[in-house]
Amino acid sequence: MPRHSPLGLDDISTPSVVVDEDVLRANVARMASQAAALGVALRPHAKTHKSPNVARLQLSAGAIGLTVATLSEAVVFAEAGCADLFVAYPLWFDAGRAALLGRALDAGAVVTVGCDSLLAAQRLASTVPAPGRVRVLVEVDSGHHRSGVAPSAAGDVAAAVASTGLDVAGVFTFPGHSYAPDRRELAARQEATSLREAAESLRGKGLACDIVSGGSTPSIAFADPGVLTELRPGVYVFGDAQQWELGACAPQEIALTVLATVVSRRPGVVVLDAGSKALGADRPPWASGGGRLLDQPAARITQLSEHHAVVEGADLALGERVRVVPNHVCNTVNLADDLVVVRAGEAVDRWPVTARGANH
Amino acid sequence: MPRHSPLGLDDISTPSVVVDEDVLRANVARMASQAAALGVALRPHAKTHKSPNVARLQLSAGAIGLTVATLSEAVVFAEAGCADLFVAYPLWFDAGRAALLGRALDAGAVVTVGCDSLLAAQRLASTVPAPGRVRVLVEVDSGHHRSGVAPSAAGDVAAAVASTGLDVAGVFTFPGHSYAPDRRELAARQEATSLREAAESLRGKGLACDIVSGGSTPSIAFADPGVLTELRPGVYVFGDAQQWELGACAPQEIALTVLATVVSRRPGVVVLDAGSKALGADRPPWASGGGRLLDQPAARITQLSEHHAVVEGADLALGERVRVVPNHVCNTVNLADDLVVVRAGEAVDRWPVTARGANH
Repeated sequence: MPRHSPLGLDDISTPSVVVDEDVLRANVARMASQAAALGVALRPHAKTHKSPNVARLQLSAGAIGLTVATLSEAVVFAEAGCADLFVAYPLWFDAGRAALLGRALDAGAVVTVGCDSLLAAQRLASTVPAPGRVRVLVEVDSGHHRSGVAPSAAGDVAAAVASTGLDVAGVFTFPGHSYAPDRRELAARQEATSLREAAESLRGKGLACDIVSGGSTPSIAFADPGVLTELRPGVYVFGDAQQWELGACAPQEIALTVLATVVSRRPGVVVLDAGSKALGADRPPWASGGGRLLDQPAARITQLSEHHAVVEGADLALGERVRVVPNHVCNTVNLADDLVVVRAGEAVDRWPVTARGANH
Repeated sequence: MPRHSPLGLDDISTPSVVVDEDVLRANVARMASQAAALGVALRPHAKTHKSPNVARLQLSAGAIGLTVATLSEAVVFAEAGCADLFVAYPLWFDAGRAALLGRALDAGAVVTVGCDSLLAAQRLASTVPAPGRVRVLVEVDSGHHRSGVAPSAAGDVAAAVASTGLDVAGVFTFPGHSYAPDRRELAARQEATSLREAAESLRGKGLACDIVSGGSTPSIAFADPGVLTELRPGVYVFGDAQQWELGACAPQEIALTVLATVVSRRPGVVVLDAGSKALGADRPPWASGGGRLLDQPAARITQLSEHHAVVEGADLALGERVRVVPNHVCNTVNLADDLVVVRAGEAVDRWPVTARGANH
């Protein structure tokens, strides 16, 4: 990316997504140290940032590769030079997906994909031109109840997948139920128990289980290095209001905010020009509102519409600018074309969100 | 847009946003007739579709102009040939916004903007090069409690705005509290009462009030043509799961769906490859889930993550494709680069979402 002349933030239109580069770098370094201290490999989830600029920081800090959500994200990061990519979800291959996989492989990346059924493995083996070049991890449900097989069934599924000629390298889970107050530690315990049982189930079928992959930002403080060989946190890189309210990050560790302007005001209430089309509409039942204000922690976003946040408890004038912390940063980034990078309050760069909208 | 060769939908990767052109045209025609029968002008909200192709259908059917959410949307539609645009929100002008307004005016459009404070009017008058070319409507709060002044204060605010040299043409409101079960009729009544009081308040200050603008898709069945001079519904053009569950549209009137594939399956549950990054994360407390399946009305989306919908009560096989109705179509469209246009189950065109991400 070419460097632009520094701009004061006053010249940036609102709403804009702003990343504090110093905080971002500290987050990257802290998670790298944490994984190193555990003796576990780090494979950050790139769906959070969708940005080769951020990926390069993570890889430079020792990440062994990236996790991605889709094959079109895999293409973006493979073509940006990342050599080791894991699509951590079950996929149903069609001609379009096979072509995307081919592009990622042709860019020189090792590509691993998730699988939780024999049928999907057969489809993969019959649709992809070079199935021998693809590695598979079997997905296990550790309590989030999205995709994945029961831990005890992992060996049977892995053996069935291997029977199609695919290379099964281990097991993975997403402990997504860690996204709730007081469930972070429980989810991490269930992750460890489930993955241990799944790995044993593979070995019981005479299959190797070199990779045992888990990890989410809220559960990682409780990750079990006796079971896991790699961790896949995503949100840690920026932080967000969910992590703040879950206690998984401190406000000073939040690197990404949406700059917004007060456009309307009445007693006790201000209205900002950032709504769900800039922040995302995520609002888990336990959240205090539609996001937070970084510099006014007592304020609450009580109503969020497409272009506006209604804020109570903030002391702000008409025209004043504020930093809004979105509830779920992955969806925020996916709404932006670029990230305004700031250092010491000055805009120093713009990073494109290269994989924005890469849903296929 | 160039016409592409027709494609069977099997060749379209999932998730993709698909628009049934026949249903879309019927929705456009029905709302045009409804407004004509009421004797009220129709100014559809273009934030729903962000597409000049759809705007042209609305204008051809008799819409007097478009409503837009931002000045960057105004630029897109002005440059696409729409001559009459209303930014129906209070704005805080800066140099970037003044430049966007200039572009919309230079493209030949009449531009009206919302205002709910003297300070914002002063800012507008002092920031915009040709404030005399901008028309202002004073925003009134009719019960949604976002922006807008109390109806009784509208005359005072209008007089203050007019004192800055701006041309005040009337009043408007957004009865957004109509987005709740059993509040559609109440919101429409409050809209009429508030706008009538606001219009009288302007006339009491010796100001004309030629435009009295309101209307949202859920409230429009109860709109009062004795008060309103124009209506600004947006969602009606596509419909969505919110309108379906509010009773404001029938499932056969839903023109836009997200095509998705079953990627995982266990007893009673299927997992689709469309999540909040394709559908949007909206889920009002009264919604039955994270969206609906158009062809399986009894099914429920019980969990929505970024790339997946967990569906209970659907009878679907692995690899099967389904049409998902998003909860809030405006946010869905804003996530897509283009809309796949189908007629009789064949893809006949792709329309770009030209104003996607136009938040400034």
